[in-house]
Order: sequence, then structure tokens, then C-alpha cells
Amino acid sequence: MLTQVVKDRLSEIVGPKNIITNQGGMAAYGYDATLMSQVPVGIVFPRSTEDVSALVIYANKIGLILVPRGAGTNLSGGSLPLEGSVIVCFSRMNRILEIDPKNFTATVETGLVNFDLQEELEKFGYYYPPDPASYKASTLGGNIAECSGGPRCFKYGVTRDYILGLEVVLPSGKVIEIGGKNFKSEFRYDLTRLFVGSEGTLGFVTRAILRILPKPPAKRTMLAIYNKVEDASRSVAEIVAAGIIPTTLEMMDNLLINTADEHVGLGLPLDAGALLIIEVDGYDVDLDNQVRLIEELCKKSDVRDFKVATSQDEADQLWLARRTVIGSVGRRSPSYSLQDVTVPRSAFPQMVEAILACSKKYDLPIGILAHAGDGNFHPLVLFDERKPDEVARVHKAEVDMVRAALDLGGTMSGEHGIGVLKKEYLGLEFSDLAIDLFRRIKRSFDPHAMLNPGKIVDIVPAELVEKRKGTVDGTSL
Amino acid sequence: MLTQVVKDRLSEIVGPKNIITNQGGMAAYGYDATLMSQVPVGIVFPRSTEDVSALVIYANKIGLILVPRGAGTNLSGGSLPLEGSVIVCFSRMNRILEIDPKNFTATVETGLVNFDLQEELEKFGYYYPPDPASYKASTLGGNIAECSGGPRCFKYGVTRDYILGLEVVLPSGKVIEIGGKNFKSEFRYDLTRLFVGSEGTLGFVTRAILRILPKPPAKRTMLAIYNKVEDASRSVAEIVAAGIIPTTLEMMDNLLINTADEHVGLGLPLDAGALLIIEVDGYDVDLDNQVRLIEELCKKSDVRDFKVATSQDEADQLWLARRTVIGSVGRRSPSYSLQDVTVPRSAFPQMVEAILACSKKYDLPIGILAHAGDGNFHPLVLFDERKPDEVARVHKAEVDMVRAALDLGGTMSGEHGIGVLKKEYLGLEFSDLAIDLFRRIKRSFDPHAMLNPGKIVDIVPAELVEKRKGTVDGTSL
Repeated sequence: MLTQVVKDRLSEIVGPKNIITNQGGMAAYGYDATLMSQVPVGIVFPRSTEDVSALVIYANKIGLILVPRGAGTNLSGGSLPLEGSVIVCFSRMNRILEIDPKNFTATVETGLVNFDLQEELEKFGYYYPPDPASYKASTLGGNIAECSGGPRCFKYGVTRDYILGLEVVLPSGKVIEIGGKNFKSEFRYDLTRLFVGSEGTLGFVTRAILRILPKPPAKRTMLAIYNKVEDASRSVAEIVAAGIIPTTLEMMDNLLINTADEHVGLGLPLDAGALLIIEVDGYDVDLDNQVRLIEELCKKSDVRDFKVATSQDEADQLWLARRTVIGSVGRRSPSYSLQDVTVPRSAFPQMVEAILACSKKYDLPIGILAHAGDGNFHPLVLFDERKPDEVARVHKAEVDMVRAALDLGGTMSGEHGIGVLKKEYLGLEFSDLAIDLFRRIKRSFDPHAMLNPGKIVDIVPAELVEKRKGTVDGTSL
Repeated sequence: MLTQVVKDRLSEIVGPKNIITNQGGMAAYGYDATLMSQVPVGIVFPRSTEDVSALVIYANKIGLILVPRGAGTNLSGGSLPLEGSVIVCFSRMNRILEIDPKNFTATVETGLVNFDLQEELEKFGYYYPPDPASYKASTLGGNIAECSGGPRCFKYGVTRDYILGLEVVLPSGKVIEIGGKNFKSEFRYDLTRLFVGSEGTLGFVTRAILRILPKPPAKRTMLAIYNKVEDASRSVAEIVAAGIIPTTLEMMDNLLINTADEHVGLGLPLDAGALLIIEVDGYDVDLDNQVRLIEELCKKSDVRDFKVATSQDEADQLWLARRTVIGSVGRRSPSYSLQDVTVPRSAFPQMVEAILACSKKYDLPIGILAHAGDGNFHPLVLFDERKPDEVARVHKAEVDMVRAALDLGGTMSGEHGIGVLKKEYLGLEFSDLAIDLFRRIKRSFDPHAMLNPGKIVDIVPAELVEKRKGTVDGTSL
């Protein structure tokens, strides 16, 4: 608990309306989209970079741990508070500061929701390519912290490819500006990409200059239905091998087709083994050729039905099914575990097999959801967390899937970050040498581990962690 | 000078045929494409990662400074030896280890010349987008060290966007592998991008996994000729504002048209104020539309002549003129200074004006060469280095151009690195806070500044620099 002195000072910094210290309010911020939770000792909502800087300076003075939070949609525990920490929630810092179509840039405060930016950009005929499934809720600051991907990343790349400039409050409370509107620049060393994906552990990003693109003149959305998931996975391999780069190439298996359809009511074929949602964009005149070629390749791998959406509304419905599918599994089981394993594209079919084998071995339903073009899988393991036996099997299945991906030259994490969830697997993927470098970087930015400690790597000895828990009552004042 | 003991040990590591310690041989490696030079005390040509590792371990033991070198085409002194240092030249490590079209990757040793990779990829129908003007000579390791760009970067991005994995010999001599063939991955923290552009100051990159792309089905190369450079610069603004992203959009002014034509003999109009080389790529069927639209926009800004290359040969000739233009100015003056200032796209015309003003103010011929779509200028200041008065004016003109770019929200360095050439301007562009972070990063990787010291930032006190110069004779053995 925070003492009144600390509460008063925090309230002075952010304003009395922008702090929560009651138990009920705090509990609402003690979770993210993983299964873990931990109630913080306070939540503050800074209104400006100056507020964030003042918070960090004060936190340094009294030894308070700060944990950043956007919308809490993250999937690896990156925004989960540690015991005794104060959450810095960026939702009040959500202004679009400038849209500059001539330079293909948008400058935003990082509490801005991704979708709100997209809506505004639409008016100018522009868009911001990274589109995590959560984009209707997730903030750009969260996207930057996790280096989020999304369906469109197959063609357009991930968050790191769209950040031109950042304003960051460093662990000292000082504010640094990095980069700018230049398409090419050499900020040496590359602090921009060091902060992107650093999960708020090296500094809090308060503003960003994003690269935006003119909307493609036209697009086509296709739905390919298969009897067997293996057939769909062959189609993916065929399309990629043909050198075609669709905007998106998404896969859902039978389990997820069923939960999505129950949720959205699209009339999807419930007996299908899998479906692919394929989108291409570009100049109208050549899209029909691309669609024809993709259809041919799908037929080679025994597609059962191949449709092109005839209206924007039909395409939107398909995307609604895809974007809400993770939530839809709640209809089938009280809990789910979501992985983020990624393999080189050519190993896509082998990874599908590994997931199927895992499901059988541990007798657990696993829904296969994949950004197939990227080799990025989000297997959804359904279970009941009240059954310890099931939980134990889920844990084993997770480790098996991570190992299978690594054996195929893959990675445990494509776009959801490390956070606390995958910290325990770090040693499976990264050498001691790499982990040592991670620690050195963390130490050189945040030697006292004041900002989002315990995420990605630990640098503070256990005794100090214990000791710090005691300081949050303000006794060190 | 190196003692015989040191020479023998170095020769033992790399093999007796792979070391140069005679004065004449060493002098040939004491320069890069800037005007500076410094003769090293030895040159070694490692054959493998193991050789590089052994060299670094030995250098640590005796306090030897190592400076990495690819082809020495770099433009900011990044590969220039400091006094008393040994050059590690990567030219023997030039193998293509694998081309994997299914995963869109090529794995290479970093001494490989960019063009040699392009030739091999051509056989598979693939290419590697980053194409610095020097690509016929420059190595991929050098491209990675400088985060090189090139004409195609307007559409396709720079080197950092094409590096999936790296093998790096750290300053300890230990070898780390980073990333892999995954299109999406979250190597946390982002060591890949930290090494890209670090100019060999954090470690020596020995291998790289590059992202390659299928060759676009078709392209069109256009030549637009203008009476005035201001008209060309208006065309650039028009094209960018229309949301068109050509593959390349290159500008050369009257001075450079003349030197290029003398050099290549293309029959370019010698009285033209400027020309643009514009290239678009994609599906054949829509390219004619794009060409038509670009022609209309050029006409709006009073283009004098607009041609589409009718054959690959004609297009190649244009590119030859562009790619050799820097060398061609040697016909006009004994020396040149090349800048790398970059501004946000919309400020392109203002930067052109600023360069013209600079040329007038200091009475110096300045050729304007620009990756116009990126706002990236390479103004070539022609002078005679034997005339101290001219040299002084050149220096003032350089500072003026850097300041003008910064005032327009630009940067001093788009793609040529910091090296030693721009180190003195660092404070104009970067805050003390940023430079302090650069130093912390360098220190956390290479605390004794053994690898390419004195580039980007200094971390070693002057006394130690002096002391180290004494150790290269092996006295500390």
C-alpha cells in the first residue's frame, strides 16, 4: 500500500482525477490478456510527457517501481504489475498531434488506440500498416513496446518498420527525442529499434512519429475452404513458393471455424478442416490476375471451395470473424493458452503437424490460428484452469510447441513479446551470451531496474526485489 | 610497428599468405573513399569466423586495436585505421553459404561483394533490394556496418530492413548468433538492428542471413530532363505528394550531367538544368498507367523532355551514368567533398535552394546529386585540396549544409554513417543525452574500445589512447 504522503504527491503530479488507489479500481488494472494477475498499489494516468517525467523523477526519489500500460491487451504479461508497483496508464495521452501526408508521417501520443488513428488516416486516403488483431483496443504505445505484427505484416512488415521517431522518458526522468520525419536517417546507435520491442523496460515512450502509407488503390479478399488442415497448409507453401506476397494469408482450423461462426454467425462451413483468408492489394488492373493465380495454386492442393468477396461488407465480415476468434473460444472452455511460435516459411507444414501431434499427445483441444505467410502460429490450447492435471498438461504442451518451433529453426516469439510469460523459456532460444548482452543493455539504461522490472530479463538480485517491496509505503522518504 | 613476435602470431592465426606488413602494401589499405588516410601497422585477411575470433582474443591479450574493412568504399572514414591499428580485411570471407528461395533468404559471409550476390540471385529470379551506388565493389559487411541505402531504397527501404540474422564476433572474441530465417521474430533486445549501422564498433559481423525478394515481373525506366533544377525539384514534390512510390527517383544537376556524360558518353543534354531518373516496378499491366501519371506530373512542372527507356540496355546506360557520377567529377577538380544530408520529403525544394545558396556564398561549384524520393542529398563540393583557402571555404560550406538540413528537420547522415568525418558535427544533431546513451552502449559492449575505436563516439580517455599506441609493438606481451 502507498502511504498518504505518496498518494498526495502522485495526485499532485497527475491531478486528483487521474489517480486510482481504491482496491476495486486497482483490481481492474491488475491483469492483461494472459491468465496472470497481480493487483498494483496504485494507478496513475499522466496527461503529458511532463507528467510522465515528473512521475519517474519522483519514483527514483522514493524507490517506487513503475509499470507502463496501454490497453492491457498484451499477451505475454508485459504490462502486468509486479508486487508493490504503480501502473502508469497512458490512456489519457491519446492525441493525434499531426498528420502530414506530404511526408507520409503521423505524430501521435502513445496512448492513442491504433484503430482511432486508422479512422483518422482514412480521411486523408492513408493508413498505418501494422494491424494487430487487437487493433480496435490496443494502443500504439503498446504496439511499440511489443513490436506488434498483425495480418498485413506478411507484405508490409511489423511495427519496427514504421517508427521514424520517438520521444522517450528515460529511467532518469530526462526526456530524449530520437529520429524525426526523415525516411532515411542514421541515429547511431539505433536507439529507435532498441526502444521498439523493449516492453517499457528501457524507458517510457510518450510520442511517436509513424510512417504512414497511401491506401492501395484496390484490394481483393478471398476465402479458401479445405477438407483437411494439411491441404490448407500445402496451399500456403505453394503460394509462398510461387513468389506471391499477398497482403495477408491467414489460417484458421476446424475448431476455430466453429467457435468463430458461433460468435459472429457468418455461415462458415462447420465441417471444413481449415480455411485461409487471403487478401491482395495494389492497382486494380492486375489484381484479377493475382486472384486467378492464387486460385490455381489452391486447387493444386485440393481446395474444396474458393470464393472472392463480392463486397466490402462481405470482406469485413470475414475479418470480423478472424479478429475476434481468440475471444470466441471462451464459448468452448473457461481458459485458453495462446502461443506465438514462428518458423521459417518453408517449415509451415511441419509446424502444423507438430501442433496436431501435441494436441493428440496431451489430449487437449488446440485451435490452429496462423499468420501463415509469416510462419507465425498462435495455437490456442483450450482447458480448464480449475483442473490442476489439465494445467500441467497445457504447460507440457507449450514447452513441446516451443521446442518444435526451435527445432525447425523458429522462435518462441513472433510478435507478442517476452514479458513474464516466456521469460522461463528464454534459455531454450537464446544463448547465455545473448542473455548477458540483454542484461548489459538493461543495466546501461536502467541500472536500478525502476521501469517495468522483471520483464524480458532480471538484473536485480532477489534481496533487493524484496527490499524494494517495502519502500513503496514511502518509508524511505 | 608490430614486433616480429606479434607478426608471427598474427600470421599463425590467419596463415602466412593472409597478412601484409610491408609499408607499400599497408599504404594501399590506409584510405577509404573520403580524403583522409592513415597507414595501419598491419593487415590481416581472416578466412573464417574462427580466424576472426582468434584475432580478437589475441588483440585483447596484447592490447591491439582492430579496425574492420570491407572494400573501403565507405564515405565517412568508418574503415580508416587509427594510428597503430591492425586492419581486419574481410575480402577472403566472401562465400555465399546458401540461397533459400522458399524462405526468401540468402546466407552469406560478410566479405561478399553486394553485386556478386545480386548476380547469383538473378539465376533464381530473386534480388537483394539494398543497392548502394558502390554495389559493384562494396561488401555486404560494409553495407551492414553503415546501414547502406541506395537508389531503390525509396520503395524498398535500407539495409536494416533486410537483415534477418547475424553472426558476430564480440569484443571478447566470443561468437554470437542472432536471429535466423524467421520473417517475424523478437530478438529482445533488438541486437540485430543495434549491430546494423554500428560501423564495427560493437563487434565484427562475420555472417548474415539476408531477406531477398522475387524480382518484380516488370519495370519501366524514365528520364526526365529540365531546364532548371528548381523545375526538377517541383516534379519530385508533385510525384511524392500524389502518393506515388517509384522504385527510384534520382536527381542530377547540370554540373553532374556534364561530368557523367564526359565519363560515360551517353549524349545527355549538356545544357539541361537537371535530370531525374525515375523507375517503377510491379506487374506489367499497370506500369503504363503509372508512367502516364508520372509524365503528367512532370509536365505540370515544365519538364523539357520525358523519355521512357525502350530497352534494358538503354536503362542500364542511364544507371551506369548515375552509379559512376561521383568518380566522374575527378575530371573537373582534383578533390571533392561529399555530404549525405537528408530532409523530410516535403522540404526537398528548400534544401535544393540551400545548396544553391551555399555554392554562391562560398564561390564553390557544388554538384547536386540526390535520392530525391528519400530527401537524401549527396552534394558534391569540388575543390583543390592544395589550396588552403578553398579547403577552409569547403569546410564552412559543409557546416552550412548540415545546419540547413537540421533546420529543415533533417539529419546530417542518411546512409553514409558517422565514422570520423561527421563525429565533429555530432553535437549539432544529437543531444548530450543521446550521445551519452551512445557511449553507454559502446561501453557495455566494448569497454576497452578494442574494436574500431574513435568512430561514432569516443569512450577512451586521451591518455589511454596514447598509451595504447605504445602497446602495439608487443611490449605488453
